[in-house]
Amino acid sequence: MTESIKRQLPSYEEFIPNLAFDSVIFGFNGKQLKILILEYHNTGFFALPGGFIKRKENLQDAVTRGLKERTGLDNIYLEQFYTFGDTRRSDPKTMKTILEANGFQVKRDHWLFDRFLSVAYYALINYNEVNPKPDELSDSINWYPVQELPELMMDHKQIVEIALKKLRDSLDEKLVGMNLLPPKFTMKELQKVYEAIIGEKLRRTSFQRKMLSKDLLERHEKLFTGGAHKAPFVYSFKSFENQSLQIESL
Amino acid sequence: MTESIKRQLPSYEEFIPNLAFDSVIFGFNGKQLKILILEYHNTGFFALPGGFIKRKENLQDAVTRGLKERTGLDNIYLEQFYTFGDTRRSDPKTMKTILEANGFQVKRDHWLFDRFLSVAYYALINYNEVNPKPDELSDSINWYPVQELPELMMDHKQIVEIALKKLRDSLDEKLVGMNLLPPKFTMKELQKVYEAIIGEKLRRTSFQRKMLSKDLLERHEKLFTGGAHKAPFVYSFKSFENQSLQIESL
Repeated sequence: MTESIKRQLPSYEEFIPNLAFDSVIFGFNGKQLKILILEYHNTGFFALPGGFIKRKENLQDAVTRGLKERTGLDNIYLEQFYTFGDTRRSDPKTMKTILEANGFQVKRDHWLFDRFLSVAYYALINYNEVNPKPDELSDSINWYPVQELPELMMDHKQIVEIALKKLRDSLDEKLVGMNLLPPKFTMKELQKVYEAIIGEKLRRTSFQRKMLSKDLLERHEKLFTGGAHKAPFVYSFKSFENQSLQIESL
Repeated sequence: MTESIKRQLPSYEEFIPNLAFDSVIFGFNGKQLKILILEYHNTGFFALPGGFIKRKENLQDAVTRGLKERTGLDNIYLEQFYTFGDTRRSDPKTMKTILEANGFQVKRDHWLFDRFLSVAYYALINYNEVNPKPDELSDSINWYPVQELPELMMDHKQIVEIALKKLRDSLDEKLVGMNLLPPKFTMKELQKVYEAIIGEKLRRTSFQRKMLSKDLLERHEKLFTGGAHKAPFVYSFKSFENQSLQIESL
């Protein structure tokens, strides 16, 4: 173990104890919904990217920094959705295995072995537009389809499930804010997004009726495709008031 | 300062540092929306009921216990909605004033003067059916109309605003789950609930159309009032799947 690695273990003096954060980064390319997962060196442990909060750092800043450090991803808007606080979620044994596999010998009463609550965040981005890189604790960082996740450590599977529920519950707003579609799109493109995130096929006619009843879309000129009678209408999102409300900065 | 009071200051050994919780208890009697506020002894400080998490206690259990201790209220289902984590929200001066006004002399480096993040919860109950009692740190505990709150300490006003936004955003679900209406009610009674919580008057015809379009209500026989031609229909809520999903216990 070199000094340079030793220095990277987060210290009790710098960080708030007992509280962590975890990020569920949903990636979507217009077709398939995936999640960004790290694999720790020599352990077979798969986990959501997470981290700790510096004593003089805003929570939101910590989460942004942590995501940058662990995945290389920058400028991603993360939305807080739940704080997980069961005593059962603590897992000093897993933490010990990860630290030892990375060459750290840590005393039993180290603050990292204590109980942790975790504030969880999610984001929805286009995975074709980013290039994640693993941090030094991890072997790999990869996009996994939502239905084919590896076994995740601690309660990370539950965190993913709740994130998915929250995302589905507020999908209209999320899609308006998150630039996953081009500025103008067809009803068919929009339907593909919904189907991938909801995880089931929808009927074209009822999807269209439901979308148009929501006062969410603005209709534009028809898309010229050569065969004019088959050209679909194109739409854009009307802007939502408050949609990008940043609670932390109120 | 007697020993019995001294023993009540929460100790670092018993509680998780740097993390608190706060509860926004909305009270509603069919007409007016109010919030439960504590006033600390001899300080003029008004605050939401809150508390700390024991080291071996589930977060949800801590919040339930804390609400019981500070307000006397029991068996209230609280929903977590946001964790506030700005460094600016720390306020050791206010904490010092409260402790001194209650006869505690506490050292500068006491853990209570450190930075605190806070996990916030809300509930919606009928204030006619409960009888809150202040804890020993507080002079009074009272219901204040949402529009006439006293000045609140720290960022508690912001916490109330976000709670109100969350409540309004999920009002349909909340009303189904929270027993604020009798099992069967008229459209007029339902409209009053919405108006009080949203904070504005609604048009009868459009409210009725919107409610009926939501697949939320079941219509029953007309209410017999003597003048049969004027009798209104009565409704009940259809039951929601997952409406009482308890995330902590998944």
